[in-house]
Amino acid sequence: MLDAIAFDADDTLWHNMQLFASTENRFKDLLAGYHEPSWIEKRLFETEMRNLEVFGYGIKGFTLSMIETAIDLSEGRISGREIQAILDLGRSMLAHPIELFDHAEETVRLLSASHELILITKGDLFDQESKLARSGLGDCFHHVEIVSRKDEETYRTILGKHSIHPDRFLMVGDSLKSDILPVVALGAQAVHVPFEITWAHEEVPSDLLSRLYFHTIDHLGELPKIVSLIEGQLPAPEVV
Amino acid sequence: MLDAIAFDADDTLWHNMQLFASTENRFKDLLAGYHEPSWIEKRLFETEMRNLEVFGYGIKGFTLSMIETAIDLSEGRISGREIQAILDLGRSMLAHPIELFDHAEETVRLLSASHELILITKGDLFDQESKLARSGLGDCFHHVEIVSRKDEETYRTILGKHSIHPDRFLMVGDSLKSDILPVVALGAQAVHVPFEITWAHEEVPSDLLSRLYFHTIDHLGELPKIVSLIEGQLPAPEVV
Repeated sequence: MLDAIAFDADDTLWHNMQLFASTENRFKDLLAGYHEPSWIEKRLFETEMRNLEVFGYGIKGFTLSMIETAIDLSEGRISGREIQAILDLGRSMLAHPIELFDHAEETVRLLSASHELILITKGDLFDQESKLARSGLGDCFHHVEIVSRKDEETYRTILGKHSIHPDRFLMVGDSLKSDILPVVALGAQAVHVPFEITWAHEEVPSDLLSRLYFHTIDHLGELPKIVSLIEGQLPAPEVV
Repeated sequence: MLDAIAFDADDTLWHNMQLFASTENRFKDLLAGYHEPSWIEKRLFETEMRNLEVFGYGIKGFTLSMIETAIDLSEGRISGREIQAILDLGRSMLAHPIELFDHAEETVRLLSASHELILITKGDLFDQESKLARSGLGDCFHHVEIVSRKDEETYRTILGKHSIHPDRFLMVGDSLKSDILPVVALGAQAVHVPFEITWAHEEVPSDLLSRLYFHTIDHLGELPKIVSLIEGQLPAPEVV
């Protein structure tokens, strides 16, 4: 048996990028009087990347980046009312209902009956806790780890804290860079559930991918089968 | 011996409110053309309180609240340049050097040699991790718990996770509401290090305080003596 199965949250259990993408469209509409949509998108992305180091991930940082981009692109001509509209975009993102993916709820509930489940998610602490609560899946997870980055060191720390052996750890997520590569590097198991939108920042070179071993599924409904498959291949635990 | 000694961070180990207070002064200067300082302060506080539920604690939420207050108080007349100045206030808060309190470094280093130390701090995950790294005290703490609120449930979860008995847990902090009351309620030990500025939101009725038992010290230099005192009074551990 696996010691624990961990899930990423955003774009693995529930929609997230979609909300950023639709907000970005509304932001481009708002600034349509100042610039072309493609230019606005480029500049917003640059602002976000520059701010990632000071703001980290999350809706509040994204909202501040939208405001900064709007001032910048309008050369300061943006009005208080327009900034208020941007604040409202951020606020409505924070209050947006959680939209679970197909099969997410049934799979998580099923596996929580037999396995220790951990939620490992990057982002803003307050926002992620609120999303988990609103998802209705809070009671399925034995541990919740909200982290500021997802690299080998992060996973090593989490496994150590919960006394989980890498051989007997499975991570499930949509991001190759955050959920799959660092986990495979530790010798643990990983299941990739690709999501159609990949953030430019998260792209991984394909020659790197072809050399790594992990499972890929189309949707979370296929996960229980893969878990059985992985567990069938695990070596018997050493007798101490 | 105590199983663990936990420290709050903001305004216990390093200055924090001072940075918010000085930023608030610069914000009032910035809006001096629109309103009286006392009115600006009142309205900013109201906006912050209203936003706490959606933004949580931290500099990014505070910056968004300043922007919202500025638009509100100027009835939308605030300019892009002025909003940029507010963004810059937030950004300079995030980059502000960490100013440790007197005795903080020597006390934390001394106690880390003999005890398991935990940092338990409320706020923005990314911001708090960055502050701990910049403080130079990161290596003194065996565990870091960044939480979205500090109530009995929060402390109970942390103690459970690290298998710490409440009798043998000591929390050190400046906030009666967050660091002392919930800890005392669990039957654990608490040392209050009062800080001169108390946020209106954090005030606790004095009749409640007079009925509770905890230690109060003037500065962190007095902590090692109190730790010895507390440990001298602890019952011998039960032999299992």
